[in-house]
Amino acid sequence: MTDIVASNRDRLLQAAVEAKTFAYVPYSKFRVGAALLTEDGEIIKGANIENASYGGTICAERTAFVKAVSEGHRKFVALAVTTDVASSIAPCGMCRQVIREFCPLDMPILLAASSYLEKEDGVRECTLEELLPFSFGPEDLERDRG
Amino acid sequence: MTDIVASNRDRLLQAAVEAKTFAYVPYSKFRVGAALLTEDGEIIKGANIENASYGGTICAERTAFVKAVSEGHRKFVALAVTTDVASSIAPCGMCRQVIREFCPLDMPILLAASSYLEKEDGVRECTLEELLPFSFGPEDLERDRG
Amino acid sequence: MTDIVASNRDRLLQAAVEAKTFAYVPYSKFRVGAALLTEDGEIIKGANIENASYGGTICAERTAFVKAVSEGHRKFVALAVTTDVASSIAPCGMCRQVIREFCPLDMPILLAASSYLEKEDGVRECTLEELLPFSFGPEDLERDRG
Amino acid sequence: MTDIVASNRDRLLQAAVEAKTFAYVPYSKFRVGAALLTEDGEIIKGANIENASYGGTICAERTAFVKAVSEGHRKFVALAVTTDVASSIAPCGMCRQVIREFCPLDMPILLAASSYLEKEDGVRECTLEELLPFSFGPEDLERDRG
Ligand SMILES: [Zn+2]
Ligand SMILES: [Zn+2]
Ligand SMILES: [Zn+2]
Ligand SMILES: [Zn+2]
Repeated sequence: MTDIVASNRDRLLQAAVEAKTFAYVPYSKFRVGAALLTEDGEIIKGANIENASYGGTICAERTAFVKAVSEGHRKFVALAVTTDVASSIAPCGMCRQVIREFCPLDMPILLAASSYLEKEDGVRECTLEELLPFSFGPEDLERDRG
Repeated sequence: MTDIVASNRDRLLQAAVEAKTFAYVPYSKFRVGAALLTEDGEIIKGANIENASYGGTICAERTAFVKAVSEGHRKFVALAVTTDVASSIAPCGMCRQVIREFCPLDMPILLAASSYLEKEDGVRECTLEELLPFSFGPEDLERDRG
Repeated sequence: MTDIVASNRDRLLQAAVEAKTFAYVPYSKFRVGAALLTEDGEIIKGANIENASYGGTICAERTAFVKAVSEGHRKFVALAVTTDVASSIAPCGMCRQVIREFCPLDMPILLAASSYLEKEDGVRECTLEELLPFSFGPEDLERDRG
Repeated sequence: MTDIVASNRDRLLQAAVEAKTFAYVPYSKFRVGAALLTEDGEIIKGANIENASYGGTICAERTAFVKAVSEGHRKFVALAVTTDVASSIAPCGMCRQVIREFCPLDMPILLAASSYLEKEDGVRECTLEELLPFSFGPEDLERDRG
């Protein structure tokens, strides 16, 4: 874990918990909060926003990313995600793909159980590559066809 | 158009233009900017954020909505959308559906041509209902089956 | 309504009802069936297929379209949609956008109540243009930027 | 690899190549073909179907799945995916998530280079678990909150 991540770790996890507050989850009742650390130390929060069509639902992680990117951020150093569940929950595949668009494969992703402060193993730490191995990315669209 | 929208109209259109700046559009090269006016007069901006998977792309309008909702806003009074095209461009169906989740059917939606300031008819004004008639919404999921 | 649609109307509505049988809806319990009539008189069925991520859900209408297009069909003349609800339910915005990619604006879309056979007004008939006015489409991506 | 997969391997790869024929890719020009083997030995093909909204795009793998599920299939034993690119290309995260909904984690996924028949290493073989480790799935939505 890089220095910038280590020094912001607690702040980032706390931000993910706060982010959960504004989840809009009338259908699943499954709140998720995400917090994204930008290269310059800013933390951007996201919550999951559901939709009656179900398919129009946007997860907490993607909310954080589109928020950050639409405000001009392009480089990120860590992501934290938390839910109301007592164990770590990992991002869905769609979110992993959106993370892939903007982040290095070794970027740390912290998956915090709801009560992570009270447990020794409350935060699972992984990298983007561990969550999305053999990933499809922007450079694949450039490959020669034929 | 309500008073709050009228008094914020120029500011809202200008914010949509500014929002376009941070569009991430390596695939379509089609920048879109959106600006959402909340009930308490705050303006929240969004840009389109594309993804190598294409399906993972999130439009400017949806970016503005998930940003706003994840920050605690739940009531909106107007939306402005603009692009780099010389005529008005309307939101895609997916965005109309996300707007539908949170907004009254008579909410004004302003569709601004790229050079709307120089033209008399540079801003097309419509309502959500005009863009998504006979809409499917949250209450439909509650209807009796059988 | 064109002759081909009129002569296939009952068959198309019946196919939409049958399509509903295979809906995969563990989350919403809201079954939808769709049936798409191709230019050469073939009927292609679709049901909604949900996903634990919610955002990965694909509606009945889109299922019918990707099925048809991936089998080589490119021209369509009518679509029928039905649910388990006693009144007509219209497609979500995302589906309207996918229909827009392949169909003429005047294509008839039949929205059938669950018990449409027993009611006089059991089938609401509209066109794509009525469901998605001022639509965004493939030609918009070609417009000059500037 | 189970017997049923081994005996259908060539047929499955060939079906993925054929499926590519009907890809609708006016925007990316990146054709993908997928072929899904059901428990009872049926092969169901899918191609990617793009949309002017980009976000409305549905990949080849998801096309194959919604097609299969909407026709009543619920159990699958293998998936093959191919493109026009000379090396193996893996499914996007969104597709991995849809596969996750229906398949065992050890299900083989065959990723075939465009000219896989002419190369010794033309087909990369992996499992769903290798593509989507620590996955989020239907059972997670059932977990106790709190
Ligand atoms: Zn997600
Ligand atoms: Zn849109
Ligand atoms: Zn739909
Ligand atoms: Zn995909």
